[in-house]
Amino acid sequence: MTAFSHLMAFQRETEALGLISERLGWDRETVMPRGAAGQRAEEVAALEGVLHARRTDPRIADWLAGAQAPDAAGARALDLIAHQYRRASAVPADLAAELARATSLAQGIWAEARAADDVARFLPTLARIVALRREEGAALAAAGLGADAYDALLDGYEPGATAASLGAMFDRMRPRLVALREAVLGAPAPRALTGHFPAAGQMDLARRAAAAFGYDWNRGRIDLAVHPFSSGSGSDVRITTRVAEDDPFNCLYSTIHEVGHAAYEQGIAPLHAFTPLGRGVSMGVHESQSRIFENQLGRSAAFTGWVFGQMQQVFGDPGLPDAAAFHAAVNRVHAGYIRTEADEVQYNLHIMLRFDLERALIGGTLAVTDLEAAWNARFLADFGFAVDRPANGMLQDVHWSVGLFGYFPTYSLGNLYAGCLHQALRAALPDLDAHLAAGDASPATDWLRDHVQRPGGLYRPVELITRACGFAPTEAPLLDYLETKFRALYRL
Amino acid sequence: MTAFSHLMAFQRETEALGLISERLGWDRETVMPRGAAGQRAEEVAALEGVLHARRTDPRIADWLAGAQAPDAAGARALDLIAHQYRRASAVPADLAAELARATSLAQGIWAEARAADDVARFLPTLARIVALRREEGAALAAAGLGADAYDALLDGYEPGATAASLGAMFDRMRPRLVALREAVLGAPAPRALTGHFPAAGQMDLARRAAAAFGYDWNRGRIDLAVHPFSSGSGSDVRITTRVAEDDPFNCLYSTIHEVGHAAYEQGIAPLHAFTPLGRGVSMGVHESQSRIFENQLGRSAAFTGWVFGQMQQVFGDPGLPDAAAFHAAVNRVHAGYIRTEADEVQYNLHIMLRFDLERALIGGTLAVTDLEAAWNARFLADFGFAVDRPANGMLQDVHWSVGLFGYFPTYSLGNLYAGCLHQALRAALPDLDAHLAAGDASPATDWLRDHVQRPGGLYRPVELITRACGFAPTEAPLLDYLETKFRALYRL
Repeated sequence: MTAFSHLMAFQRETEALGLISERLGWDRETVMPRGAAGQRAEEVAALEGVLHARRTDPRIADWLAGAQAPDAAGARALDLIAHQYRRASAVPADLAAELARATSLAQGIWAEARAADDVARFLPTLARIVALRREEGAALAAAGLGADAYDALLDGYEPGATAASLGAMFDRMRPRLVALREAVLGAPAPRALTGHFPAAGQMDLARRAAAAFGYDWNRGRIDLAVHPFSSGSGSDVRITTRVAEDDPFNCLYSTIHEVGHAAYEQGIAPLHAFTPLGRGVSMGVHESQSRIFENQLGRSAAFTGWVFGQMQQVFGDPGLPDAAAFHAAVNRVHAGYIRTEADEVQYNLHIMLRFDLERALIGGTLAVTDLEAAWNARFLADFGFAVDRPANGMLQDVHWSVGLFGYFPTYSLGNLYAGCLHQALRAALPDLDAHLAAGDASPATDWLRDHVQRPGGLYRPVELITRACGFAPTEAPLLDYLETKFRALYRL
Repeated sequence: MTAFSHLMAFQRETEALGLISERLGWDRETVMPRGAAGQRAEEVAALEGVLHARRTDPRIADWLAGAQAPDAAGARALDLIAHQYRRASAVPADLAAELARATSLAQGIWAEARAADDVARFLPTLARIVALRREEGAALAAAGLGADAYDALLDGYEPGATAASLGAMFDRMRPRLVALREAVLGAPAPRALTGHFPAAGQMDLARRAAAAFGYDWNRGRIDLAVHPFSSGSGSDVRITTRVAEDDPFNCLYSTIHEVGHAAYEQGIAPLHAFTPLGRGVSMGVHESQSRIFENQLGRSAAFTGWVFGQMQQVFGDPGLPDAAAFHAAVNRVHAGYIRTEADEVQYNLHIMLRFDLERALIGGTLAVTDLEAAWNARFLADFGFAVDRPANGMLQDVHWSVGLFGYFPTYSLGNLYAGCLHQALRAALPDLDAHLAAGDASPATDWLRDHVQRPGGLYRPVELITRACGFAPTEAPLLDYLETKFRALYRL
């Protein structure tokens, strides 16, 4: 065996073990007995120990030094393994273990603090997580994996992205989004959907929508979870959703969003399975697949027309006069505190707030004790009204409690990529709306599979989007789309 | 750290990884998407590779050589680890890998052959499995783990048992069981339960029965599976059942059986978790817990009286006049081919047949090509009528296809132990029937937890049963119980 084949065989097992770890996460959030949490933590710790040992195995360096890639895919696989190895090896084992311990405890403390609206209960924990992640980022930056600690953390989610480039992107987006938001909120609001929508009917509708987007049930399943997610890859990609009986859009669009993530993992070419190319290439590209399903396609007039008919079948009269009113209700913009409930117009403004604050936290220019005041001041400035309580402010997201610094901006990058892909996809599929109106998104799913999903990790994120679209990604297509859509909906 | 603490820390992770492997097995049989089988096989192979490397890690020998046990539990843990290490190390890696490969393929071939009633399709595969297991048994015997290949395989399921002692046990049991079977089948048969029993009602009844036996839902759950099983340990012990709408006893008694296995794993003292003492001590003892729940308690007049009332609530009139007729229907003895459908009287006769044939296969005195004829001749001699087709004969069980030679006799050992434990338990709990009649088996569950389950692997199987009962296990209590019960039921 050559060094290359040794390395790929070793990596193959590591990828398989990583999928097992992900499957355990699914189990915990969906079917695990309540009393099993402590035992499961020990099981996961054992598996993570095995994975960490493999990811930092010194033989990887030897194999990398001697490996000759047989082709471009092999060369890219070597690059990705080298990148993972550099990241895993740059962090001292003690620090990695302490981070794992601290973040596993922090989520529960955050949940308690949020439930009690008690910032003080969370601050010592958050301070510890920030300090540990700053230390980790500094270690990664010292190993050349980013210009500074924040960039080095960002590199773990979106290789190639930098805070400087993202900051410039946000600076270009903000004025147009703020102007659109103000115009929309100044106009008469459309009627909202109200009523009681039984859970069984919502799950029925969710299954119909998943099928409309080409979700492969032979390689997946749907379950309930508190926070919807998608997990797995290849031939075992499971989605979850949630049901609020007064808000059927929550279940429906959570499902379509997760089907977008799942379609990506189901759509990667099987030859990449169990290689470093076998997963979505970055968080931003992943989010582009969920967002384009959820928003550009799922909230389009054509598709919501089909949904309107389905809802009439499932629930009877949904209490709105026609498909146009239903489309307006789906896309209703309203002032709110919560990122995950935000509409397309305001979503990225929520991200910009978090991006600036987390950069300052990791950069050391904002103390954790000053975070609540900074959040509230920024929210008032950006959204025009004051945060009423911490659960609607700095305690609303789980991310920081589990150490996810550098993750939030990938959501906006996903929206930006989705805007670009949507422009290219519409140009390639001029009759797409006729299919969407019939409840068939498969032409779009097929286009995305061919242009984005099949290559898996073969191309770097920006290169992948550029190849798919025929142009380098910018924010312009997203902003044009939003302005066109919402000016029409709100008759501006 | 001492050698002992090093070893126990290492073993702790191995036990945790073993539980993950078991959880993946549950997932495959209950919730896994159909299309995921190939991918899952690769994931499991990677995990089994990790486990095999850990179980044969040469550091174990060094730690064992230097370890000082702090107490009796520690000494027993060292014995169990040493035993596992000797077994894992005695089998050449090539042979272990070939066995894993061959048995993973063989189950599908067996299922096809059974469906097609085609012995010839299965024989080459069976011959290969027999040869590999014989080779494995010989390697284990050469390492001192059994007097011969069969004993060495048996040692993997029931440490301390030998074919000679089991054969003598069966020789003592056979005449009394045959005499009882002939007397019962010569008497008028009680009415059977007939009708249609919807699946939802059966699952409701299954949950009521599981609760009656004290199954802890906070540390478990129930799902459907083709072949019911229990899996996991400690705070995550899941059961499965199946539903045949014309036979509610199938679901009910499969559930109670699996609750018995689950109660054992839920009942082990938490301090033994993630140690070699943290699981049921042998297959025979495990089966004793499922059998005493299912048979001695679950099929008793007192408990079936409660079940009769529950079935009236769930299904309406079950078509039998009273609880006595219902008790007789539950315990109806009938001539049949299938072990898993056998009643208490005939079950062990099915095991004796398999025990003798598999000893001859592994011992080399019976060729695989002669197995069908040998099975059919033996069945005719033991049961008095001829096998009509291979699916009702030598193709009925999955066990041999997956290499389980030496496993069948542990079922009878479980029945024997259950008989002993039942005698002791009844002596200790004179008013148990009053509780069972009210749908509360918890006094029995509590007694079994205290006397059998809590110690986990602390005592050797025979020692454990002897301590629990106050006498050394023999077949007499089981045979006395069966004769008393069935002579009364059949008015002999």
